[in-house]
Amino acid sequence: MNTHILEYTFEEFIEVIKKFHGAPAPGVVIGGFMVDTAIRSLPNDILYDAVCETRSCLPDAIQLLTPCTVGNGWLKVIHLGLFALTLYDKSTYKGVRVFLDPKKVEPWQEIKAWYFKLKTKKEQTLEGINKEIKEAGASILTVQKVELRPEAVEKKHKGKIGVCPTCREAYPLNDGATCLLCQGNTLYTQESRM
Amino acid sequence: MNTHILEYTFEEFIEVIKKFHGAPAPGVVIGGFMVDTAIRSLPNDILYDAVCETRSCLPDAIQLLTPCTVGNGWLKVIHLGLFALTLYDKSTYKGVRVFLDPKKVEPWQEIKAWYFKLKTKKEQTLEGINKEIKEAGASILTVQKVELRPEAVEKKHKGKIGVCPTCREAYPLNDGATCLLCQGNTLYTQESRM
Repeated sequence: MNTHILEYTFEEFIEVIKKFHGAPAPGVVIGGFMVDTAIRSLPNDILYDAVCETRSCLPDAIQLLTPCTVGNGWLKVIHLGLFALTLYDKSTYKGVRVFLDPKKVEPWQEIKAWYFKLKTKKEQTLEGINKEIKEAGASILTVQKVELRPEAVEKKHKGKIGVCPTCREAYPLNDGATCLLCQGNTLYTQESRM
Repeated sequence: MNTHILEYTFEEFIEVIKKFHGAPAPGVVIGGFMVDTAIRSLPNDILYDAVCETRSCLPDAIQLLTPCTVGNGWLKVIHLGLFALTLYDKSTYKGVRVFLDPKKVEPWQEIKAWYFKLKTKKEQTLEGINKEIKEAGASILTVQKVELRPEAVEKKHKGKIGVCPTCREAYPLNDGATCLLCQGNTLYTQESRM
């Protein structure tokens, strides 16, 4: 059983997670094995991008273990509520999708209870769940070959940038006559921004 | 002029960026001063969350310099196309918004050309832009006191988790009779997932 996660031992990876994510959340720990599995399933010599199908935990495993981050655009979080990630060749859109497989999780009581939220947070400890994750490793994952629809992961170019006549901030002119925030500010209470 | 970015010297922060983001992209470098400014504008003793109004570069500055990440849910990327971030008190929704101010950028030719895309990538070097950013520091930023609308940043709870009858993956039952991917897969070509 391989308990390494790329260049890290399991325990080293736990420390890496703590520093970035805060607690060693099971979703990031399992995510480590998922990224490791995906990378091993891809050819060595390709440039890959990443898609993450949940916004919970998993994006951080991808950001910690691959060159793909939210800010550099190589990781796209497309929240579908599935605990799955895909690494794919930028030039062919072909790649591998790895998900945490409910059927394979069945024998692991702690992982199953965490995944399906069968226990309260008080009834489980991170240590207890992570102990099982270390034992289970990649055995609870399923890998699929996939091909992305290019339009789903296309980079959107900002186009020309101008100054919003209302708030005087820089914004993509393609968004309209004013910036999106001035068009209908659903983010801040009205009095507070300008 | 303070050229430190929290605990880092400017040069150290460039190295931190390279390791996580790849290239020392000006957006992440300026983002460093933005996060630094936001944190200094907040009371010391609060627990804060973050909002980022662009998906380009800036989320990585937040993830590198605060406890807030995409995966732990303390950073929300709400893409409005504005180069702005907000750190706010989780309990009161009050905080500070920092943006890169076009008026203050005016005297800085390299930063202005980058911000408004006035030159091609070939006509500018990262080193040239970052040299100006180091000199300009926080002087090109504007800080606003803001109050978030709670509904805009609310954590959505997944609710009960079940197994999708079509693909046999785990999904939030609130999403419907099957998982969102099985309801209309716009992410992968049809033949490739199952």
